[in-house]
Amino acid sequence: DSHGEQEEPDSWLPSLITETPQEGFALAVTLSQKGVATTQPDAEVRKAKRAEYDDDPDSLIAASQVIATHFQTVAAANDYWRE
Amino acid sequence: DSHGEQEEPDSWLPSLITETPQEGFALAVTLSQKGVATTQPDAEVRKAKRAEYDDDPDSLIAASQVIATHFQTVAAANDYWRE
Amino acid sequence: DSHGEQEEPDSWLPSLITETPQEGFALAVTLSQKGVATTQPDAEVRKAKRAEYDDDPDSLIAASQVIATHFQTVAAANDYWRE
Amino acid sequence: DSHGEQEEPDSWLPSLITETPQEGFALAVTLSQKGVATTQPDAEVRKAKRAEYDDDPDSLIAASQVIATHFQTVAAANDYWRE
Amino acid sequence: DSHGEQEEPDSWLPSLITETPQEGFALAVTLSQKGVATTQPDAEVRKAKRAEYDDDPDSLIAASQVIATHFQTVAAANDYWRE
Amino acid sequence: DSHGEQEEPDSWLPSLITETPQEGFALAVTLSQKGVATTQPDAEVRKAKRAEYDDDPDSLIAASQVIATHFQTVAAANDYWRE
Repeated sequence: DSHGEQEEPDSWLPSLITETPQEGFALAVTLSQKGVATTQPDAEVRKAKRAEYDDDPDSLIAASQVIATHFQTVAAANDYWRE
Repeated sequence: DSHGEQEEPDSWLPSLITETPQEGFALAVTLSQKGVATTQPDAEVRKAKRAEYDDDPDSLIAASQVIATHFQTVAAANDYWRE
Repeated sequence: DSHGEQEEPDSWLPSLITETPQEGFALAVTLSQKGVATTQPDAEVRKAKRAEYDDDPDSLIAASQVIATHFQTVAAANDYWRE
Repeated sequence: DSHGEQEEPDSWLPSLITETPQEGFALAVTLSQKGVATTQPDAEVRKAKRAEYDDDPDSLIAASQVIATHFQTVAAANDYWRE
Repeated sequence: DSHGEQEEPDSWLPSLITETPQEGFALAVTLSQKGVATTQPDAEVRKAKRAEYDDDPDSLIAASQVIATHFQTVAAANDYWRE
Repeated sequence: DSHGEQEEPDSWLPSLITETPQEGFALAVTLSQKGVATTQPDAEVRKAKRAEYDDDPDSLIAASQVIATHFQTVAAANDYWRE
């Protein structure tokens, strides 16, 4: 996602500020995935399991809930892109 | 939903501002669905699974929870449509 | 619920402002149900399934959670009905 | 719970303001139970099912989650009982 | 936990104010447990069931979620212990 | 994690303030784990069970939800790292 600037390789979250609400939503998705990746750092395991929950409506709704929570944070950080 | 203006084809979230609380609620529903669609981008799979959770009270309540979370964000963005 | 005024037939959410906290709670219940109804628009299906979750303590607690989330929004909109 | 004053019989939520944090917590419990009671208004059914979830750790944690959400609202309403 | 002062025996929540973030976290844990204890007041039952959920990763995560929600409240009450 | 200074051995949460959003996210992860560790203090039990939920997509999403909730708190404490 595109809101980064010149940062170190390990830096994946330089800022919560985005140009638009839609970029903010994309950042919320990134944050959600990072939460999963931090808990299960093995990308192979995550990939293997992904097929499982991609198919499960309840998992999809739960993932959408995490995104919603992060979107609250990102939206507040951006003062809701009012202006 | 109707709160968009002249935007690019890929733009689905130009603003969190809506005219009325009811439009804000509709936007919260859109955001919830987008969270699911981002996690499972294949519309065919989503459609196939939809019949499953449409029927499941717990899934419906969970979906309503995601909407409630997004509605908090949209309502705050609109200063609760107070006068 | 009674906080509406003269509005169009399709309008179910003219305002988040209520006279009392109790009316605010009732509005939170309405919002929760609307979240379910939006996801499953067929009232017959909802009614058939209602018997199922009306009986299930976990579903009742989950429904109460959605109400609590909406009540946060409504209470904030009304500045908590402080004086 | 004791934060009511002279109100009509049906009035159960005259205010979100309480004297102390502890009374605020008690109000959060009341709000949680009211959310359940609104969804399943039959007290007999609730009582019958209560034995079920009283015993289930996951249900108890879920109930505690609803209380936590309402406590956020009540605490904010009381400006966190600072000073 | 140590943030109480001279209070009546039944008083377990005299204030949301704590000296440090860490004490605030401990208070959030207390609040979470109180939510469970209020719903199931029989300590014997809670103890018997505790072995069950102490072992269950999903229960532990759910308990951590309740703590997180209360920590939001306590942190806001303390203005995040800034300066 | 690196946001501590000179503190006592038992001190694990000296402050909610971090230099960057990314350190704030790391702190949110720490808070989530601490919530689990407080509920199940036996590290051996936690380790044994970890293999279980590390593998379960729903547990991973639930863990991500707890992180998201704590990240809201940490982000607010840091005024969203706005300039």
